[in-house]
Amino acid sequence: MKYSYVSHLSCPKCSIVYSCDEPQHLCEACGSPLLVGYDLSSLKTDWLKEDLTTRAPDLWRYHELLPVQNKAHVVTLGEGMTPLIRLSSLSKEIGIEPLFLKDEGVIPTGAFKARGAAVGVSKAKELGVEEIAMPTNGNAGAAWSLYAARANIKSTIVMPIDAPKITRNECAVSGADLFLVDGLISDAGKIVSQAVKERGIYDVSTLKEPYRIEGKKTMGLEIAEQLNWELPDVLLYPTGGGVGLIGVYKAFKELQALGWLKNDKLPRLVAVQSSGCAPIVEAWKEGRRESSFWENSETVAFGINVPKAIGDFLVLDAVYETEGCAVSVDDSALLQEQKLAAEKEGTFICPEGAACFAAARKLREEDWIKKGESVVVLNTGAGIKYPDTVDLDVPTLGPDESIPASS
Amino acid sequence: MKYSYVSHLSCPKCSIVYSCDEPQHLCEACGSPLLVGYDLSSLKTDWLKEDLTTRAPDLWRYHELLPVQNKAHVVTLGEGMTPLIRLSSLSKEIGIEPLFLKDEGVIPTGAFKARGAAVGVSKAKELGVEEIAMPTNGNAGAAWSLYAARANIKSTIVMPIDAPKITRNECAVSGADLFLVDGLISDAGKIVSQAVKERGIYDVSTLKEPYRIEGKKTMGLEIAEQLNWELPDVLLYPTGGGVGLIGVYKAFKELQALGWLKNDKLPRLVAVQSSGCAPIVEAWKEGRRESSFWENSETVAFGINVPKAIGDFLVLDAVYETEGCAVSVDDSALLQEQKLAAEKEGTFICPEGAACFAAARKLREEDWIKKGESVVVLNTGAGIKYPDTVDLDVPTLGPDESIPASS
Repeated sequence: MKYSYVSHLSCPKCSIVYSCDEPQHLCEACGSPLLVGYDLSSLKTDWLKEDLTTRAPDLWRYHELLPVQNKAHVVTLGEGMTPLIRLSSLSKEIGIEPLFLKDEGVIPTGAFKARGAAVGVSKAKELGVEEIAMPTNGNAGAAWSLYAARANIKSTIVMPIDAPKITRNECAVSGADLFLVDGLISDAGKIVSQAVKERGIYDVSTLKEPYRIEGKKTMGLEIAEQLNWELPDVLLYPTGGGVGLIGVYKAFKELQALGWLKNDKLPRLVAVQSSGCAPIVEAWKEGRRESSFWENSETVAFGINVPKAIGDFLVLDAVYETEGCAVSVDDSALLQEQKLAAEKEGTFICPEGAACFAAARKLREEDWIKKGESVVVLNTGAGIKYPDTVDLDVPTLGPDESIPASS
Repeated sequence: MKYSYVSHLSCPKCSIVYSCDEPQHLCEACGSPLLVGYDLSSLKTDWLKEDLTTRAPDLWRYHELLPVQNKAHVVTLGEGMTPLIRLSSLSKEIGIEPLFLKDEGVIPTGAFKARGAAVGVSKAKELGVEEIAMPTNGNAGAAWSLYAARANIKSTIVMPIDAPKITRNECAVSGADLFLVDGLISDAGKIVSQAVKERGIYDVSTLKEPYRIEGKKTMGLEIAEQLNWELPDVLLYPTGGGVGLIGVYKAFKELQALGWLKNDKLPRLVAVQSSGCAPIVEAWKEGRRESSFWENSETVAFGINVPKAIGDFLVLDAVYETEGCAVSVDDSALLQEQKLAAEKEGTFICPEGAACFAAARKLREEDWIKKGESVVVLNTGAGIKYPDTVDLDVPTLGPDESIPASS
């Protein structure tokens, strides 16, 4: 048994194959992101579901289906196997039964970005990388800089001055070379590109290295295992860069190839966006295979404020091939769902995750989600990383006062 | 097989026994906190370590040793089985090998308080409680109000106006009746006591209900299981109210009674406090069995700012009986360790957890921790809940600037 059954990289657009034994970024011919391939036919005979039973509850339990070839290169903070919890109260409220929440707030750094960083940094270490750079809207930079610190890899992070303060602190505390830019994520991207070009730093911008998807993929593997290899009918995913959705789809396809799934059909994948930044939704509505740049994007759900994703065509492919859809929701609706999830289920989710509840409600009302269909909603991070989305109106008492009788 | 082998409550001071089938708070005779008892001799024959293999990675995997008798009453957000990670860089730096971090930041609500809340709220539900109240310095209130929301139990939370803002938001979003008090935790306590007395609300103040300890206990059970039932030589714990340390000690004693441990001796337990609030340390130095109120306490580690803990005698018992010790560290030292843990290990711990690293360093320097002894440090929460402890000095670039050459 090998630790990893990784075999190659390939371009999903022009099918050129690359080695996974040396640093590789976008396809050299067409500029597309690359996907990681595995020797699934060998794995099908060598690997059994039962092998998982005695493994630790982290994402490395799926190491055969991850790109790191030598266990010694694994850089881990114990990430993965986040809770999949049943939501009984919201279930009744929205009319979806069963309704599950995959809670990616319960992970190092408090957001799903930890998965991409753990696998991406580990593979970078395996490839001998000594320095990485990336632009970020916050959570990705936090995760990558902390995992890089653990791997003793130097990191350079550039983030918009408006990115959430907590993620800025995470980057700073990691010892990264952190720069704020008085501009947007696209400005941060330009600054990183220049540094990468001039200094030969390993570029870990979204989808510019192929291994982040593999980390995100483990969300799909876990959902399958947690549901005893019987996938839900529908899965809703907050979609910014879309790496998570691409990863989850890839996971399901790989499990299908291994013959581990009880389902004949894959879940219908739903890309959820904010109506203030909905390029994928617009493209899907028009039946297009790529999205257009969304001008003047704006939403409280910072993580899905991505006007044009480099992997948009992969997201749209996944949606079309699973007969899913793309839905946008208003900020006011998602903020309401965030509060409701806390009040009814005790779970303080992030605005991006809350957007999926708003979308689920909408799709149930439109009967796109049928009565009795099982639904998983993915929450990408902890609500505590976004303290300002909660509207507070708290009474203050003096030390000698008592709680008012009306309460 | 019963779901729980809970048998009774008993007073550790005067040995009076109480039923665990109805609400019970402090000992009616002497005012001491009560401890939960189990039928360990039946459990010793009925329960095998191997039974755990196929259970989900949350704290309910130890349900036989928890007080909830009917599985239907379990209120869970998937809490528990937090990572136990090896720290190789800090190991070298501090001279302790092996050095492990039990990371309680990777749990719903981002702090170890979730464990006490999950078990406490579940038992409250089992006992038919409809309304709870508590004073809090932040994290406990956040956890209890969110779990109460999930259980459909009303909660009243009173917190000092200076408590961390993020925890205030968590309480608010849960729909709790939240009040700030322009005073200290002791003022909040008085307000809660009055409400409890006047309205018959179930009091869940620290150790005033017996089940929170049981939740915290699971940290000890997990550490044992994660180390394959071979406990470390030393365990350091940030000590405010001390419930965690009491719980971990109880766990080790119960595992000893079940015959599951490979060790003859239990780990030496170290209670770590800030030099700005060190009543347990002072009591230990003088060989006393109870602490005295610490006047004008102050520390950046908000969670261990407890001038006089109601369970102080239980903490000191655990320290004496395991031949442990109590150590205080300066705020400046713990803040330095917080930064170092992030830079060297990629883990953004809370100030309370960082205090334990400062203490470990001190104890190693004094040779109280011997070369070659194994050490576990407990981090009670995520650094992201305390954004203001990180000192920031981040350069800002204009959109057309590039990263300075010196960097």
